[in-house]
Amino acid sequence: MAKIPVAVLGATGLVGQRLVRRLADHPWFEVVALTGSARSEGKRYADVVRWRLPGDPPPQVADMIVQPSDPAHVPAKLVFSALPSSIAADIEAAFAQAGAFVSSNARNYRMHADVPLVLPEVNPDHLALLHVQQRQRGWTGGIVTNANCVAIPLTLALKPLQDAFGVEQVFVVTMQAISGAGYPGVASLDIVDNVIPFISGEEPKIESEPLKMLGTLSDDTVEAAPIAISAQANRVATRDGHMLCVSVKLKQQATPAEVAEVLRAFRGKPQELNLPSAAPTPIVVREEDDRPQPVRDRDAAGGMAITVGRIRECPLFDVKFVVLGHNTERGAAAAALLNGELLKAEGFVA
Amino acid sequence: MAKIPVAVLGATGLVGQRLVRRLADHPWFEVVALTGSARSEGKRYADVVRWRLPGDPPPQVADMIVQPSDPAHVPAKLVFSALPSSIAADIEAAFAQAGAFVSSNARNYRMHADVPLVLPEVNPDHLALLHVQQRQRGWTGGIVTNANCVAIPLTLALKPLQDAFGVEQVFVVTMQAISGAGYPGVASLDIVDNVIPFISGEEPKIESEPLKMLGTLSDDTVEAAPIAISAQANRVATRDGHMLCVSVKLKQQATPAEVAEVLRAFRGKPQELNLPSAAPTPIVVREEDDRPQPVRDRDAAGGMAITVGRIRECPLFDVKFVVLGHNTERGAAAAALLNGELLKAEGFVA
Amino acid sequence: MAKIPVAVLGATGLVGQRLVRRLADHPWFEVVALTGSARSEGKRYADVVRWRLPGDPPPQVADMIVQPSDPAHVPAKLVFSALPSSIAADIEAAFAQAGAFVSSNARNYRMHADVPLVLPEVNPDHLALLHVQQRQRGWTGGIVTNANCVAIPLTLALKPLQDAFGVEQVFVVTMQAISGAGYPGVASLDIVDNVIPFISGEEPKIESEPLKMLGTLSDDTVEAAPIAISAQANRVATRDGHMLCVSVKLKQQATPAEVAEVLRAFRGKPQELNLPSAAPTPIVVREEDDRPQPVRDRDAAGGMAITVGRIRECPLFDVKFVVLGHNTERGAAAAALLNGELLKAEGFVA
Amino acid sequence: MAKIPVAVLGATGLVGQRLVRRLADHPWFEVVALTGSARSEGKRYADVVRWRLPGDPPPQVADMIVQPSDPAHVPAKLVFSALPSSIAADIEAAFAQAGAFVSSNARNYRMHADVPLVLPEVNPDHLALLHVQQRQRGWTGGIVTNANCVAIPLTLALKPLQDAFGVEQVFVVTMQAISGAGYPGVASLDIVDNVIPFISGEEPKIESEPLKMLGTLSDDTVEAAPIAISAQANRVATRDGHMLCVSVKLKQQATPAEVAEVLRAFRGKPQELNLPSAAPTPIVVREEDDRPQPVRDRDAAGGMAITVGRIRECPLFDVKFVVLGHNTERGAAAAALLNGELLKAEGFVA
Repeated sequence: MAKIPVAVLGATGLVGQRLVRRLADHPWFEVVALTGSARSEGKRYADVVRWRLPGDPPPQVADMIVQPSDPAHVPAKLVFSALPSSIAADIEAAFAQAGAFVSSNARNYRMHADVPLVLPEVNPDHLALLHVQQRQRGWTGGIVTNANCVAIPLTLALKPLQDAFGVEQVFVVTMQAISGAGYPGVASLDIVDNVIPFISGEEPKIESEPLKMLGTLSDDTVEAAPIAISAQANRVATRDGHMLCVSVKLKQQATPAEVAEVLRAFRGKPQELNLPSAAPTPIVVREEDDRPQPVRDRDAAGGMAITVGRIRECPLFDVKFVVLGHNTERGAAAAALLNGELLKAEGFVA
Repeated sequence: MAKIPVAVLGATGLVGQRLVRRLADHPWFEVVALTGSARSEGKRYADVVRWRLPGDPPPQVADMIVQPSDPAHVPAKLVFSALPSSIAADIEAAFAQAGAFVSSNARNYRMHADVPLVLPEVNPDHLALLHVQQRQRGWTGGIVTNANCVAIPLTLALKPLQDAFGVEQVFVVTMQAISGAGYPGVASLDIVDNVIPFISGEEPKIESEPLKMLGTLSDDTVEAAPIAISAQANRVATRDGHMLCVSVKLKQQATPAEVAEVLRAFRGKPQELNLPSAAPTPIVVREEDDRPQPVRDRDAAGGMAITVGRIRECPLFDVKFVVLGHNTERGAAAAALLNGELLKAEGFVA
Repeated sequence: MAKIPVAVLGATGLVGQRLVRRLADHPWFEVVALTGSARSEGKRYADVVRWRLPGDPPPQVADMIVQPSDPAHVPAKLVFSALPSSIAADIEAAFAQAGAFVSSNARNYRMHADVPLVLPEVNPDHLALLHVQQRQRGWTGGIVTNANCVAIPLTLALKPLQDAFGVEQVFVVTMQAISGAGYPGVASLDIVDNVIPFISGEEPKIESEPLKMLGTLSDDTVEAAPIAISAQANRVATRDGHMLCVSVKLKQQATPAEVAEVLRAFRGKPQELNLPSAAPTPIVVREEDDRPQPVRDRDAAGGMAITVGRIRECPLFDVKFVVLGHNTERGAAAAALLNGELLKAEGFVA
Repeated sequence: MAKIPVAVLGATGLVGQRLVRRLADHPWFEVVALTGSARSEGKRYADVVRWRLPGDPPPQVADMIVQPSDPAHVPAKLVFSALPSSIAADIEAAFAQAGAFVSSNARNYRMHADVPLVLPEVNPDHLALLHVQQRQRGWTGGIVTNANCVAIPLTLALKPLQDAFGVEQVFVVTMQAISGAGYPGVASLDIVDNVIPFISGEEPKIESEPLKMLGTLSDDTVEAAPIAISAQANRVATRDGHMLCVSVKLKQQATPAEVAEVLRAFRGKPQELNLPSAAPTPIVVREEDDRPQPVRDRDAAGGMAITVGRIRECPLFDVKFVVLGHNTERGAAAAALLNGELLKAEGFVA
């Protein structure tokens, strides 16, 4: 099978780099273009990227010449967007207009009514919004988005509970890694021996995006799930891996053991379709008192599985537990990639 | 005025060292004895203490000979106990039996019905339990305890809300400093680039001790406050200063501004009595988006004031906010010291 | 005695903040002006400064209106410059021209032949260059500089050895704190779980500035000390306190015990004059195997004393040891302040 | 080809765990026994190991029953020893006596005259000492050791220089990762926001072991290389990867470019024999100003390549540079494994 030509928009940033690395040996996709800012354009990728991952850029793409983020220069029908939100809106629209499907990690279109906010294990059926989007916007391509790096693991952990017991209220307090702020991002003087109890713009996303993903598609629109979420976002001195302390009020009572069981048993469309980047077990449940931990669990299934631990009764709600997700993989780069794989598997791109 | 002779039991540990430092130039108290384990006994304090604070042990006590933790060797009617809980119960009882008042940081007696668990700004009247204790146990001295290093700042922040609006339910997620585990305590491999979502025995204390401190003394007993608390305790890579993310359901609705106002206006008995170690303002309220922070706020009022920030509406409860308290000062050593000062001011020791 | 009016140029940066804090209760000096960039000018200091130290700006200066860095707006004959080197050259010259004495932490004039690079314990006599400077440049004021934050503790540790035994060659490898790079400075992704073996422009300063300070003033010029230094500068994840691993080849052999003795016995002009910011003992020598350490020793004498430990034979040179100095105090803010105090004590300002 | 049965002695410690992980899918070796202390003996490996690496113990060994460290219970002719030095001497001798070849990471026998201290890229010929050892000790097996985790990368970096130019004197200052101290090892209070300028017993090893590895085998004995080394060892807050700042005095002058060239071109016996764990390029030379760095370079070639950067002239010696080696892989577990592979390739085990 010939590989599908794809591009990475905004390939020099932290998320772009991770996409580039994941695509280097992808069984379905082949990178044919990398785009960057005017400063990088026309230069060799390896010369302009400030590579923040271990080692060096993959040899397959090191010599590529960085292109402008313009469909005229990008011969791909599937593009992954790691663009900053300050410029993503127009560029992504231009690609969709020009007939490409954009799997975007940017926040701009996430909450647009006709744009699917997809977590493949949770709401793959929302891809159908792409037809609405094409009809309403007159596009031949389309935009699909993935959620915020906390909203993704939270929603993935809530989905099996929603299916089995119903979810009514959720408290979540996060301890988020520094990579979530990009590079240079968090100043070291702000985080060594310190915690910052605030991340700009984060809490509203955590309180809204899961409701769309857990919502119901009907009549060409998504009805948000009737769940109330309260979030407190904190930055701590970890490199990768967001920790979430979660308390959940269920519709129908369940024991911690029952909750553990439905989380452990959960499989979604990516597992069913055997998508290349899918974790065999999307939710790893651990029994130890002191897990999950960023250094030990963030790379579970290559960063594609979330880990849930300390499942126990909550004195106020029904159950509480701790969730860990790799923020720049499961929560960003690999999330966009998995959406791209779903687009292919569902026939949107070929 | 002649100073009151005092002793520090367990003077070589982290909390003991902080007590020793705070007592070095105390206006009311003079250290006349330091006790330690059999390993240290009979040796010069400066030679056996592994001093973990900046610089060196205070010259006033450096040459003292470490005594056994036995009232026969400790000529003081007021003793501060930084003993480990594994041995605190018998030793503290022996001192109380022998006529000394023990201000203890150990957890052993905290929840005993006849032992006051005192936070001077919150429940100074609970000291009256000492009379019950003397009567029931036949002691001429007595034991007063301070709470856990999270329970103290949490209770201090809840007290003004309880008084003004009533408190019904509390969610609290902590991010606790490594000094809370003593020395050697947390292994560096467990915390560099990591978070541990578990601290042994911590959550039950956080869920129970505030109820006793916020409870009502009547008929020689404390009736626990009818509040339900759900706690999740985490260890993060900060040296000092415990952060608490708190959501509170009030009995009577209040706006964030009203909550801020009552916190800011709060003063307690230590402020009224002008105790030497009292913070002028026990609760510092900050308006910035990103405060409190351990490195910037833990030393407020020499570590005796807690700092509250990010006071805002909670989508599920009435209000949420972030609290910071210095765990080994306000939450341990200085808490015991302030209880000692209260004992003196209230005439228990002279 | 009326206090001498002083100003801080560049008062909003990290070093400026430390100067402001040190000057708040100074016995000789009173801050009458703070200057800042165009963005801050005309606004209240407390409103524009992003205060990075614990707590808040001192109340004495919080309400001051930030001035432009222009002598016409700064009614002070003694000014402390924490200006960035990109703009320090012209501004400092304008102040000196206008008759003020500038104690500068900027690097611009350090190696100018007619500008004293002064470490008061080491070469207070170099202040005489101010007369040369005034003559050659036609200034009525003048500029005195302090050295780089590594060069200062290194030079201070070498001075007693130079006096007692002569110094010929020096190897120095540093482990420098993140505060040395200012704010935002080092990105957290570059330093959490990491070391950066490079600090731009640092090694040449370490290899040259000590030679001027240890040099001899004669005939209106400083002859550099005939010492060869090899430096390797590294950044590590500490907040404050630069560590230096030093090996020294002496002219005349000496035992580690002799080296320790001359370091311990060392006193300089600031001690002799009893300058307000002088450490009683400028070099603290420690005997423990594992000292100095940043968290335990950087605040020795309020950050004004350096600490030397692990003094022992070097298999290649004569002696090796480890030096710690507080980089933003002894190595920057307090260094400029001490130079200002020396200017006053020596009669340059009154 | 049937795989060779091997065992890991001391399989529950940090180095043991890494050996177990590396051996899980080894092309030549198959783990048939894991040994541990009396506490672990007779129990399932996965139940007793406190697994400190990401994820879980390999399924191939999870169910193995931990054996005593006694040849009678270990049916393997090749054993890897990750035993603590407090017990390694007798146990390793017992295995060698019983006919097994022991590839040991323990320090006990490293400097024994008849025990090879082997770094396969540097002195594979020293394996011949095994014949001397067998003859002198009456063993049918034998012991081969690998060096200290700093001595290994230092020696590997020096070897090409020794061959090309001769090496006379070496200054080395290290910044070592916390994993080097095992678990629990370094207390977090000793390293968060701190540096410890001392590692017990480390400097003598760094100053002596390279001389044996770089020495010459003749007449059944190794003559130490006539090189003088001065070491200063520091502990910093990195998880893995030891950094070495090195200055070298050569016998014959060479430019930094020439030094880079011989390092880059270096290949050894493991590369020639294509041993399974050999890095294709054992020394990675980087041109960037700010490399190597632990987080970016420690995993080069799966942790088997060292990285050298900042090669430049030294004002005192000929050349200076920075070396990074993964301390628990290249410097410990994988070092022992590579020695085992060399034993097999050279026919000592089959």
